[in-house]
Amino acid sequence: MFDKLYVALIHYPILKKDGSIVSTAVTNFDVHDISRTCKTYNVKNYFLVTNLPAQRKIVEKVLDYWLNGYGGEFNPNRKEALEIFKIKNYLEDVIEEIEKNEGERPKIVFTSAKARNNVVSFEELKNQIKDSDHPFLILFGTGWGMPEEIREISDYDLEPIRANGEFNHLSVRAAVAITLDRLIGEIV
Amino acid sequence: MFDKLYVALIHYPILKKDGSIVSTAVTNFDVHDISRTCKTYNVKNYFLVTNLPAQRKIVEKVLDYWLNGYGGEFNPNRKEALEIFKIKNYLEDVIEEIEKNEGERPKIVFTSAKARNNVVSFEELKNQIKDSDHPFLILFGTGWGMPEEIREISDYDLEPIRANGEFNHLSVRAAVAITLDRLIGEIV
Repeated sequence: MFDKLYVALIHYPILKKDGSIVSTAVTNFDVHDISRTCKTYNVKNYFLVTNLPAQRKIVEKVLDYWLNGYGGEFNPNRKEALEIFKIKNYLEDVIEEIEKNEGERPKIVFTSAKARNNVVSFEELKNQIKDSDHPFLILFGTGWGMPEEIREISDYDLEPIRANGEFNHLSVRAAVAITLDRLIGEIV
Repeated sequence: MFDKLYVALIHYPILKKDGSIVSTAVTNFDVHDISRTCKTYNVKNYFLVTNLPAQRKIVEKVLDYWLNGYGGEFNPNRKEALEIFKIKNYLEDVIEEIEKNEGERPKIVFTSAKARNNVVSFEELKNQIKDSDHPFLILFGTGWGMPEEIREISDYDLEPIRANGEFNHLSVRAAVAITLDRLIGEIV
C-alpha cells in the first residue's frame, strides 16, 4: 500500500565529480520543493540527511520562518507541507526512526540517473509497493550521486528516468517529482 | 509529434493572493531546474516571461556564469541545458518567436492546479500532440496562477495533477517535470 512511504534526500555521503566522498550544500529548494511534492503524493515523512551542523542551521532558519514566522501566516500550504519534513545527521538515523514508527525496517529503494544492471522497473516497484504491507524508503542523491555503500544496503535499485534520451541530467527536485508520480500517480 | 514542443514559465501577468495582477520574482531554480527538465524531455525552447528589467538582469548574470564563466567548465551539462533557455518580456513575444521558427502559431496549452470545467486529460493531450504536426506551447504560472485572459487565448486547458488529493500545492518546478513526464515519458 501507498500509505507507508518515506523519502530521503542524501547530502552525505555523496560522490564528488572526482569520485571522492563529500557533503553537498543544502538549498532552500531542497527543503521546500521536495516537501511540497512529498506532501502532494501523501509521503509520510521527507528526511534531509546532512552531517554538517552549519547546513543544519540554515535549514532550521528556513523552517522557523515558515513554521513559526510570517511565512506560515502568508502561505499556510507551505507550512503544512513542511510539517512532514525532518533533518537527520545520517541515513542510519532515518532508518532507525522509520523502524521505530512502523515496527519494522523499511525496504530501501536506491535511485540514480546512471545506467546499472539488475534494476527494477517503475511498474514492478509500483506493484511491489501496492501489494506490500512493508514501509518503503526511497533514497535520492545530490551532487554526482550516492556511493556504492548505499546501493549495497538497498533492497531495490530503481531504473533511471529517460536513460535512452540524449540528455538525462534532471535536477534531484525534478527526479523526486517524476519518481513519485510514476509510482503513485493519481492514487489517493 | 513530440519534436515541436515549447514551454513557457509566466512571471507576468500573474495573480496575487488577493486576485490582483502582479509580476512575481524570478529564482535561480526557475532557470536551472526547468531548463534541465525541458532539455531532458527534448523541449525545443524554454522561455521565461518577465516584464521587469531588474529581474532580467539577475537572470542574465546567472546565464553568464553558466554559459561563459566557470560554471560551464565545471558542469558542462548545465551549460548544455541552458542553451535552450530564453527570456522574453511578454507572452506575445514567445508566440511570435515560435511562429517565426515553425511557420505557424503554436497550439497553446494552459495549466493550473485549480479545478476547472472542460479540461483535457493528460492522455488526450498526449495523443493530440503525437498525432499532430503543429507546434505546441505549454504555459505554467507562478505565484497564485495565470489570469483568465491567458486561459481565454489558449487552445487546451490541461487537467490538474492530483486534483482529488488532500493537498495539491506542487512547486511549479515539480509541476513542469510531472507534466512533461506524463505527456512524453520515455519517448525519445
